[in-house]
Amino acid sequence: VPAQQEDGPAGGDPGSVAETGEFGLIDRVRAAAGTHDRVLIGPGDDAAHVRTQDGTYVVSTDLLVEHRHFRRDWSSAVEIGRKAAAANLSDVNAMGGTASALTVGLGVPPGTPSSWVVDLARGFEQEAALVGAHVVGGDMTASDVVVVAVTVIGDAPRPITRSGALPGDVVAVHGRLGWSAAGLAALSRGFRSPRAAVEAHRCPQPPYTAGPAAADAGATAMIDVSDGLLADLGHVATASGVVLELRSTTLAVDEPVRTVADALGTDPLAMVLAGGEDYALAATFSAVTELPPGWTVVGDVRDPRATEEPAVLVDGAVWEGDAGWQHWR
Amino acid sequence: VPAQQEDGPAGGDPGSVAETGEFGLIDRVRAAAGTHDRVLIGPGDDAAHVRTQDGTYVVSTDLLVEHRHFRRDWSSAVEIGRKAAAANLSDVNAMGGTASALTVGLGVPPGTPSSWVVDLARGFEQEAALVGAHVVGGDMTASDVVVVAVTVIGDAPRPITRSGALPGDVVAVHGRLGWSAAGLAALSRGFRSPRAAVEAHRCPQPPYTAGPAAADAGATAMIDVSDGLLADLGHVATASGVVLELRSTTLAVDEPVRTVADALGTDPLAMVLAGGEDYALAATFSAVTELPPGWTVVGDVRDPRATEEPAVLVDGAVWEGDAGWQHWR
Repeated sequence: VPAQQEDGPAGGDPGSVAETGEFGLIDRVRAAAGTHDRVLIGPGDDAAHVRTQDGTYVVSTDLLVEHRHFRRDWSSAVEIGRKAAAANLSDVNAMGGTASALTVGLGVPPGTPSSWVVDLARGFEQEAALVGAHVVGGDMTASDVVVVAVTVIGDAPRPITRSGALPGDVVAVHGRLGWSAAGLAALSRGFRSPRAAVEAHRCPQPPYTAGPAAADAGATAMIDVSDGLLADLGHVATASGVVLELRSTTLAVDEPVRTVADALGTDPLAMVLAGGEDYALAATFSAVTELPPGWTVVGDVRDPRATEEPAVLVDGAVWEGDAGWQHWR
Repeated sequence: VPAQQEDGPAGGDPGSVAETGEFGLIDRVRAAAGTHDRVLIGPGDDAAHVRTQDGTYVVSTDLLVEHRHFRRDWSSAVEIGRKAAAANLSDVNAMGGTASALTVGLGVPPGTPSSWVVDLARGFEQEAALVGAHVVGGDMTASDVVVVAVTVIGDAPRPITRSGALPGDVVAVHGRLGWSAAGLAALSRGFRSPRAAVEAHRCPQPPYTAGPAAADAGATAMIDVSDGLLADLGHVATASGVVLELRSTTLAVDEPVRTVADALGTDPLAMVLAGGEDYALAATFSAVTELPPGWTVVGDVRDPRATEEPAVLVDGAVWEGDAGWQHWR
C-alpha cells in the first residue's frame, strides 16, 4: 500500500532504514532468508506461494498506518476497511488467484468509538464478500494512532509471477488508472469533487475476476498497480529482465482524471502513469493470445539492448516525472 | 500477545474501545461477521480453520506495538523477532497443528538502523525454523514507534478448539508457567537476573511438538497460555460450558519463579496462575487417555452446578488475584 504522505527529504542517517530505503532493505532481508522446498514463491512477488500437506496457498500482507495510508477525516471506517481489504485481495488477484480469508490486526487509541471499529470490520467483510472471502481472525491492541495490519490467503493453482514476461509479449492493463490519484489530489487541496475521483480514492474497485481470467488465458507475468503503473511495471521489467515499451496514446485518460488535471493545471498522463491505489492489473501475454474481456494492449516487451538496463519506457523514452511512491524517501 | 504496560485506570469514554474492552468488542465484531461454509472454525479460537480448493489451513494473527508488547532497550532485535514468531507459532501449536509460513508487517521509525530490521527478520527465521516454517512475505512502512504484525499459517488436519472440554475430563499442562512473568517482574525493577527468568521473558520456549502430539492423543480442548493460565483456561471453560477445578499442589513452581517471588516478597503461585507469555499449552483429555510425554494433570473438568457460571477454580475457590491482562483496562 503506497503512503499518502512523504517523510521529508530523501536520505537519512547512514545505515538507517530511511537511508537504505524500503526496497533495498527488503532485498537484504530476502537474501538472508534463503530458499526452501515448501516455499514455491517467496517474498518479493504480489503474494507468496506455499506448499501444505494437502495443497498450496498464496499469502500476502500489508501494514497501514493512520496519517500515512489513510485519514479518518477523509474516509469513513467502512471505506478504510474496504480499501485495506481491497489492497490485499488485489494481491491475490494479481497472482491469478482467488482469496479465501483475511486476518486483521488492529491498533486503536483507547478513546476510539467502538462503533468505528465495528464499521471498519464491516468494511472488511463487505469487500471480502465480493470474492467470497471472509475475515477469519484478528487481534486488537491499544496504539497511539490507528494501525491496520491485513493478511490475505487464497487459492492460486497456477500463480502468475512478475518474472515471466518474454520478448515479443504484449503489455496489457485492466481497470482504472489515475482515478485514486486524482481523488487524492482533489482531497489534498480541500475539494470533495469530482465525486467519482474522490470515491475511487476512498474505495477502489479492483477488477477481481480479471486476475484468474488472465491466468486462465496464459498471462506470462502480472502485477497489480498499487504504487503506480510505471513503478509496478518496473518490478515486472526488473524481475523478467526485459524492457517494456508503453505507447501513451493507448492509455485511457478517463474523465475524472482529466477533470482534476485540468483544474490543477497538471498533466493527466502523469496521474495515469504514476498514480497508485486503483488496484488495476497490468500483465504480459504472448502476442498470439486472445486477451480476456476488459484487457487493453498498451505496449510491447523486448530484450534490453546492449548497455541498457531492464526498464519501462513511455513512447520510447524514460518518463521524466514521478514514477510512484517510496515509503521512506 | 499480552501487553506489558497498562493503559491507566479501567473505564474510558462511554462507547469507546477502552470502555467496551477488547473481548466485548471482539464479540461484537464476530457477531456481525456471521458464519460461512468455507470457514470451518472462525474468529475466537487460537487460530481459524479455513477450507480451500484442495485442503484446509489454520491461520492466526497478532499485532505488537513497541512499549506495550516489547521494549528495544530490554530485548535485542533477534529476541523480539523470535518472541513475536513464537507467540504466533504457539497459536498453531495450540490447535494441534504445525506452522508452514509466517508473514510480517513492520512499521519502523525512519531513523531505525537497517541492521535492527535485518536482525529482527533473522529472529523470525530462527524461531520459524524450529517448526520447519519460513517467513514468506512482509511489508514495511514508516511509523512513530515500532509495530510488528505477524500472521501464521499452518496445517492442522484435526484442529483442537477451546470448546470441546467435557465433564469428567482431566486438565493438563505442558511447558513453563510463570517464568516470563518472573523475568518481566525482575526487568521492571531494574534487575537483569535471575538469568533463566529474564531469558524466558525475552525469548520464550513454547513446547512446539506437544500440540500435535496432544491432538494425536485425542485432546478434547486446547489453548496456549499467552495471557495467563487462569485467563486462558477461562476461555476454555466459557467456550466449553464447564468448570475447571485446578489443584494448586499439582502446579510446578519452578526455581526461577520462586527466586523472583521470594526476592519481591510476592506469591510465586500468582505468577504461575496469572503470568503470560511462556506459551505453555493447557488441554483437556478424557480421563482414560494416556497422556503424551511431558503433560502433567493439574485438575478436572465438571459441569457447572445450578446458579454457577462456567469458571476456573483453584482449590475449589475463585482465584482472588489478577488472572491476566486485558489490553485496554
